[in-house]
Amino acid sequence: MQRASVQSTSPLSTEDSRWLTLNLVAWTDEEGKSRTWEMIARKTKSKTGVDAVFMLALLRLPETSDGKVVPWTILVEQFRPPIGTYVVEFPAGLVDEEDKSAEDAAIRELYEETGFKASKVLKTSSALASSPAMSSSRTKLVSLQVDLTAEDVDERGNVRLPKQNLDEGEHITRRIVRLDTLKDVLDEYEQSGFIIETRLYAFAVGYSLLSEL
Amino acid sequence: MQRASVQSTSPLSTEDSRWLTLNLVAWTDEEGKSRTWEMIARKTKSKTGVDAVFMLALLRLPETSDGKVVPWTILVEQFRPPIGTYVVEFPAGLVDEEDKSAEDAAIRELYEETGFKASKVLKTSSALASSPAMSSSRTKLVSLQVDLTAEDVDERGNVRLPKQNLDEGEHITRRIVRLDTLKDVLDEYEQSGFIIETRLYAFAVGYSLLSEL
Repeated sequence: MQRASVQSTSPLSTEDSRWLTLNLVAWTDEEGKSRTWEMIARKTKSKTGVDAVFMLALLRLPETSDGKVVPWTILVEQFRPPIGTYVVEFPAGLVDEEDKSAEDAAIRELYEETGFKASKVLKTSSALASSPAMSSSRTKLVSLQVDLTAEDVDERGNVRLPKQNLDEGEHITRRIVRLDTLKDVLDEYEQSGFIIETRLYAFAVGYSLLSEL
Repeated sequence: MQRASVQSTSPLSTEDSRWLTLNLVAWTDEEGKSRTWEMIARKTKSKTGVDAVFMLALLRLPETSDGKVVPWTILVEQFRPPIGTYVVEFPAGLVDEEDKSAEDAAIRELYEETGFKASKVLKTSSALASSPAMSSSRTKLVSLQVDLTAEDVDERGNVRLPKQNLDEGEHITRRIVRLDTLKDVLDEYEQSGFIIETRLYAFAVGYSLLSEL
């Protein structure tokens, strides 16, 4: 298995594109003045009102002998052609036409990308603006609980990774991370040449901020 | 002053666009197979290696009588034509050609959008991938400390908002928020019809997660 790489980048017309379209928005500002703004939109449409979901999966490990519960989560690594390198992210995906809800899409995508089956939907956010300066994309954060049993953990305390259910040609690497080490793990990723996805980084900063202040 | 609104949206060709371009990336996957991917890129280029910055501004209020230090931050609200409504976000902006660094851009944009002058750069992230499935955009999170004096706080303990330095036609509303109420404030925004930007939401989830678990 080799590392993926970008060969070339060339302009694409909106008529020839399958997924994305470049648009001009005509809008009226707060003073009643007519203005324009350039934006990108997805050609795909879902019935759920959002284009995509990303998942905070909280693994519930079998209770340890000292009775402590430490939250763990799942990250994914993959080559992202627009960035031209490997990116570490929360699991995420587009909402398909068949998905009846954001939660359905989140559970399906988590299973496909990581092999883990969600036990419970903990919370679903409202529709969030992913990149409001340039895109109409709306996304939801779905927090999922994944219950593990003693068989899912090996004798050294590491979580056994289940079989993934990837599409043809998809290559996604999984990483199980204790939340209290997330910031350090992201620093390691950065030092080994990965790019960190912004929402994951913002989450990690928020999570670690209390202890840093 | 009226509310801004979208009048219409129409396709735009890459040749006619000033800010954004639609591209096709030719790439080689992990199995050596040639593939393509659609993506958006900004036409603007900065010398800093990132397109944009967003800012976590931590206000340092004069010490209260009980000696407690509570962190506060600054949010901004503005109409975002790609989303078609008002969005609440961290202060943010594009890196200009004149900006020598991401920190320069962050300090300048914070001053322009909010009127607050940064006292200190606390931390700058690596280049993060804003939307790696569809955009080449890279952004940095710059954490800034803003020191306030007794004159910046009124007799009721509220922070006096300084004069903004907005571009012509820009309309940005500021909101000072205690971090331990951020999640509740975002819920209120949502209930009053605002859309929340994803990175801000992810930060708030991370910040409040410890207390929720």
